[in-house]
Amino acid sequence: MSSSNNLGYAALAEYLRGRGLNPDCIRVAVQSLAIETPAWGYGDGGTRFKKFHNAAAARTSRERIADAGLTHRLTGACPTVALHIPWDKVDDWDEFATYANTQGVKLGAINPNLFQDEDYMLGSLCNPSKAIRQKAVDHVKECIDIAVAAKVNEVSLWLADGTNYPGQDNIAERRLRLLETLQECYAHMPANMTLLVEYKFFEPAFYHTDLADWGASLTTCQALGPQAKVLVDTGHHAQGTNIEYIVSWLIALGRLGGFHFNCRKYADDDLIVASSNPFELFMIFHELINGGTNGRAAETAYMLDQSHNIENKIEAMIMSIMNVQMAYAKAMCINRNTLAELQAAGDVLGAHRMIHEAFETDVRPLLAIMREEAGLPIDPLKAFREGGFATRMAHERSK
Amino acid sequence: MSSSNNLGYAALAEYLRGRGLNPDCIRVAVQSLAIETPAWGYGDGGTRFKKFHNAAAARTSRERIADAGLTHRLTGACPTVALHIPWDKVDDWDEFATYANTQGVKLGAINPNLFQDEDYMLGSLCNPSKAIRQKAVDHVKECIDIAVAAKVNEVSLWLADGTNYPGQDNIAERRLRLLETLQECYAHMPANMTLLVEYKFFEPAFYHTDLADWGASLTTCQALGPQAKVLVDTGHHAQGTNIEYIVSWLIALGRLGGFHFNCRKYADDDLIVASSNPFELFMIFHELINGGTNGRAAETAYMLDQSHNIENKIEAMIMSIMNVQMAYAKAMCINRNTLAELQAAGDVLGAHRMIHEAFETDVRPLLAIMREEAGLPIDPLKAFREGGFATRMAHERSK
Amino acid sequence: MSSSNNLGYAALAEYLRGRGLNPDCIRVAVQSLAIETPAWGYGDGGTRFKKFHNAAAARTSRERIADAGLTHRLTGACPTVALHIPWDKVDDWDEFATYANTQGVKLGAINPNLFQDEDYMLGSLCNPSKAIRQKAVDHVKECIDIAVAAKVNEVSLWLADGTNYPGQDNIAERRLRLLETLQECYAHMPANMTLLVEYKFFEPAFYHTDLADWGASLTTCQALGPQAKVLVDTGHHAQGTNIEYIVSWLIALGRLGGFHFNCRKYADDDLIVASSNPFELFMIFHELINGGTNGRAAETAYMLDQSHNIENKIEAMIMSIMNVQMAYAKAMCINRNTLAELQAAGDVLGAHRMIHEAFETDVRPLLAIMREEAGLPIDPLKAFREGGFATRMAHERSK
Amino acid sequence: MSSSNNLGYAALAEYLRGRGLNPDCIRVAVQSLAIETPAWGYGDGGTRFKKFHNAAAARTSRERIADAGLTHRLTGACPTVALHIPWDKVDDWDEFATYANTQGVKLGAINPNLFQDEDYMLGSLCNPSKAIRQKAVDHVKECIDIAVAAKVNEVSLWLADGTNYPGQDNIAERRLRLLETLQECYAHMPANMTLLVEYKFFEPAFYHTDLADWGASLTTCQALGPQAKVLVDTGHHAQGTNIEYIVSWLIALGRLGGFHFNCRKYADDDLIVASSNPFELFMIFHELINGGTNGRAAETAYMLDQSHNIENKIEAMIMSIMNVQMAYAKAMCINRNTLAELQAAGDVLGAHRMIHEAFETDVRPLLAIMREEAGLPIDPLKAFREGGFATRMAHERSK
Repeated sequence: MSSSNNLGYAALAEYLRGRGLNPDCIRVAVQSLAIETPAWGYGDGGTRFKKFHNAAAARTSRERIADAGLTHRLTGACPTVALHIPWDKVDDWDEFATYANTQGVKLGAINPNLFQDEDYMLGSLCNPSKAIRQKAVDHVKECIDIAVAAKVNEVSLWLADGTNYPGQDNIAERRLRLLETLQECYAHMPANMTLLVEYKFFEPAFYHTDLADWGASLTTCQALGPQAKVLVDTGHHAQGTNIEYIVSWLIALGRLGGFHFNCRKYADDDLIVASSNPFELFMIFHELINGGTNGRAAETAYMLDQSHNIENKIEAMIMSIMNVQMAYAKAMCINRNTLAELQAAGDVLGAHRMIHEAFETDVRPLLAIMREEAGLPIDPLKAFREGGFATRMAHERSK
Repeated sequence: MSSSNNLGYAALAEYLRGRGLNPDCIRVAVQSLAIETPAWGYGDGGTRFKKFHNAAAARTSRERIADAGLTHRLTGACPTVALHIPWDKVDDWDEFATYANTQGVKLGAINPNLFQDEDYMLGSLCNPSKAIRQKAVDHVKECIDIAVAAKVNEVSLWLADGTNYPGQDNIAERRLRLLETLQECYAHMPANMTLLVEYKFFEPAFYHTDLADWGASLTTCQALGPQAKVLVDTGHHAQGTNIEYIVSWLIALGRLGGFHFNCRKYADDDLIVASSNPFELFMIFHELINGGTNGRAAETAYMLDQSHNIENKIEAMIMSIMNVQMAYAKAMCINRNTLAELQAAGDVLGAHRMIHEAFETDVRPLLAIMREEAGLPIDPLKAFREGGFATRMAHERSK
Repeated sequence: MSSSNNLGYAALAEYLRGRGLNPDCIRVAVQSLAIETPAWGYGDGGTRFKKFHNAAAARTSRERIADAGLTHRLTGACPTVALHIPWDKVDDWDEFATYANTQGVKLGAINPNLFQDEDYMLGSLCNPSKAIRQKAVDHVKECIDIAVAAKVNEVSLWLADGTNYPGQDNIAERRLRLLETLQECYAHMPANMTLLVEYKFFEPAFYHTDLADWGASLTTCQALGPQAKVLVDTGHHAQGTNIEYIVSWLIALGRLGGFHFNCRKYADDDLIVASSNPFELFMIFHELINGGTNGRAAETAYMLDQSHNIENKIEAMIMSIMNVQMAYAKAMCINRNTLAELQAAGDVLGAHRMIHEAFETDVRPLLAIMREEAGLPIDPLKAFREGGFATRMAHERSK
Repeated sequence: MSSSNNLGYAALAEYLRGRGLNPDCIRVAVQSLAIETPAWGYGDGGTRFKKFHNAAAARTSRERIADAGLTHRLTGACPTVALHIPWDKVDDWDEFATYANTQGVKLGAINPNLFQDEDYMLGSLCNPSKAIRQKAVDHVKECIDIAVAAKVNEVSLWLADGTNYPGQDNIAERRLRLLETLQECYAHMPANMTLLVEYKFFEPAFYHTDLADWGASLTTCQALGPQAKVLVDTGHHAQGTNIEYIVSWLIALGRLGGFHFNCRKYADDDLIVASSNPFELFMIFHELINGGTNGRAAETAYMLDQSHNIENKIEAMIMSIMNVQMAYAKAMCINRNTLAELQAAGDVLGAHRMIHEAFETDVRPLLAIMREEAGLPIDPLKAFREGGFATRMAHERSK
């Protein structure tokens, strides 16, 4: 792999200025975008058929933090690490936070695990059994306590609940159970904490999911209170869904809590974000800027949530971060005043072309300069490869 | 075609009683389900490629009302007729209502047309032009006035607005325009009127639809007030969507306004409801009963909205009504007390099997008895064919 | 759960005769339909998130065979058991076949495993590495040898190969590798053996699957020779796909090799066949009869391939078999002579109604009689539950 | 709109050379790509809900040819025009071809219309009625004669046949009718003519399409002979389908006949190609180059088939052509030798990144130079707008 910095920043900057855009603003904005990476993404991932082992993959919480730290050192863009409980549970959160700091990162959103206990076969917060629901509530409350201990302000809830067969359980009653259990969790949160409520179209439940779409997550958040917000996972929608539309509405409703970025061609494939449809991510950032202030993307929790099955995990994280930065930078290449004029005039293709011209702009030189100024490698992926990290890790982690 | 009444009602009744169900209750409940048919469904329908002409198809408002009346005389199930303005606009609504009464039906929901005026190329209530938005508002207000004049309590809004190209217009601003224009419409309604707010995944707009899903319709209704409710068209969802889940949630949220029933295998095909997936309609009625009272389906507006392209329109309506009645009757063949016990016990397949056994039950004898008792033909479709109506209509309507 | 035999066979038989159908023929035809069950379906299944443990689930090959035997004793419909190599690999195939006979079943199709070896991370028969391709070929040849040793005539190939990222590998070259490796496998088969070539839309590969659809499997079979046929897994298609259309074409082309039956609402959910869309399975049998002889379904390999995650495995198998029998019986309730006349006359709804009336027919009394005559429990699922098998197994298998 | 030629060709050329690519070859290759535009795309398009009128839209065959000529003069890329019979039928084909030459274009593929006659309600070549089938055959043969008269070598067949309701007709018999009727058509073709056989997933038929996927078209072509080839319309697939995979297989099988390019987010939306997923078109060209010779895209018929509902038709054509050229140029920015090495080494992300880096390359300067050298406007869309053509046309065509 070779550097991306070949096209010449000067020409790009001139091009942007010619369109009434300030390349410096774009650089500063992209530089300030923090993308949380998930601890679980640094370990081996897989499908139900096989989890392939990567010799360099992180095996422990500390190794996952170390890898997140390395990713941040190379990209400068992912200062926090999302944790999964109990996978990343430790006895001493102060000590763990300090360790993270030594790796250059901070602890991020706490993610309860409501799907891997044998008790959760028929659900967790929606389970027909009151005892199991209480167990799930207790786990979420434990995660809230952990968040407090770890000085983190976000608990991110992905509910795997649902049913596989029509009639297996009562959808309406499961909803009531969910509201009741979530209310208990919500009440346990301190005032500065946010509960991110994720939704998913299907999987692991195959007939119905208890939180299946943004309408379900949103009305649940409304029932809980202002500290509950919707988390959009880009892989959790039906085919053909216009995700940026949902993003736009959630911003308008004041309930966009954040993202789990990844890419899917079919279902929840958890691929590297933008790997097979970069235009979609670009349009999401277009709406984020439309709904933000000062021409910047709305402030919300930007996180990756991917499963790296056959590729090096850190490389996948780096590429994902670079793809997010690229999408954001391109979306900033739109002169929104001009666009608004064309839209107001009903100039369908004039307005549409502005979008496409921004997308066609090769922003890699700008991103290279941005990294250079920040003392980062201009090509973080190349730097990772040339640094020989993977080989070293594979050696150490095979012991 | 031959009669359905062959399997023997006695055996069926005994079977149902053996399961703790009262066949009389089922008959009474199904008998009382009113299904509104759409005036536009009695005329020629088509695709963008071709509208095939059926010689018997209704050509005028009065012919459409007459056909609706005939359909009601044969089925006893569709006492009201939805109207589309301006297609069904008349000068004297009292006179028109009286004419409908002579045909045995009443006027039903008023449907504004916000998609066929040249001005609406870029939208109606969301159009970038304030003047065009006002024109659309005025049309909806006119429809509200018509509803008042026609003594009808429902205005049913399908918004065809959206965009075809990314960037063509600003999604967030279109939403604000929609709220503003709808608020003006809403304020125009008398207190006893309901505004049904439909959503649609795509078509005729192909990049984004301004009301794309139930989350959008619901939050729009919330912004308007208690007289606004969500209308679920069974053909307006992404592939794989669990519609009964949405129905269950809307009931729980107090915002289910009604249905447009039809069937689709791919997109918004507008086929005869249940023609290619009868189990889905059955499960929708399962949730309607779960969310209803006294073991009956929730009270809401049940309407057909179909496009009959290659078949006789009245036959299609009759078959649709029979399919809805069958789905409802089958869903009542579930002993919900027993089901609840199995669900509470986590008996996945025991509970699921109850659903399937209800679905497998051949309720045609019960529906035949129900019709017989009401003085209706036990096989309305056969009666239509044997009555020679189509031939007579084709003859008269070819003049 | 109660018996299904309540509606009265006499009334049903009379109804069928009134439509020119012979209920005895239906019973005999359904009785003769053999449905192969998969050994792997008797063990614990799961998703990538969690494999829930069922105490009664089979743990070993012999337990799986025993469970298949029990399923066959209760249903009389599944005389053979598909095996998965290496999961079901034994040293002495004669001894294993004899054991199967003691359980009342025979060994069935041999299924190579080309997805669980670490070497197969980038594919098996299509892997860029010649050595790994050879390893995969050797495994398939071993499976062919096992089929010979086990006196089985079918090897069933599901290829998990594909790529996750655009550009990861060369699609055209992978196809050439596949043809080359499969040709070597094919040449290894004795003359009486059939190679069933399955296709799958996606998963576990997420960007492209090397055998993605029936067109790919078919042209691959054409390149191999007459002993290669296409296997249709009902869960392996894009949303909206008309599977019965594919079945009809494959029969016409002489290349329908068999089925893997299961049900999916979204992706390859591997649910109990017909659990959420029974009409689809019914229409598949409609086409199988259209393409068969003497009014019976075409002779081909009927197999289940499901993953039972949260339910008892044997119950799931029994219900699946009952669902297949029901779909077949209902599809035989169509008088095809009358249907052909209506179709020839262009009577769209007359012909369509015949389909629906057959589907509405409650064939459970006929199936009950069929089982009774064969000395089987008339309700196999009830018999399994009342027999206390699950409890006994759970006890024994927890030791 | 402003020119695209701002980024500097020199930097781009240097960048490409640094990657072992020859920018001159790319320019020459893209320059030589001929994209046929459809006459029908210059007139008003619409949905089943409304056909909006554009004052500048072409109304007659000659106006359509004139507009195609203008599009070609501005882009230099669309030297031929596909015709639709009877829409573009003329008495004197020599005279019409001469007229086309005066406009700078030649006549292209002849497209029979098998969907707009009242007789075709239940199908054309597959209709149950032999007389109607013969009428359809005669029309195709007439089109072949027209092709001969117009000195055109391609007849492009889109079959709208199918059914709306299960059981409406017999799928297997419809297939036999199709083979029989197509064989008669095929036999009518001179030796130098190609029959392009298109497939479509659904619409206007909603239960089944007689040629539903590439497997159906391919096996039909195989039955006809070597002059029959498959036409891939990019909007005619199920959601999630990997179109480039199909392209790769069709090339390998020697049966890729050509393309109908357009873009869809949901169904067959017929939008400007690449307007909402440019990466897909890029990957199609990647496979076309993989399957071509000398590093160029395979020689096949490249055509647009779009429906421009709310935009100026010529602008839409120009933008489509520019998008195709861009996709092709970007796909040529891949050093295939290096890529092959990375693929052979199993370097998943190394290989994938090469794809992404090519896609990220802004090739607009190269395309600008290419146009300049050919004496074309460097920004054809801008040139069309500045030329005031639309206004002039609207004026003339409103008379």
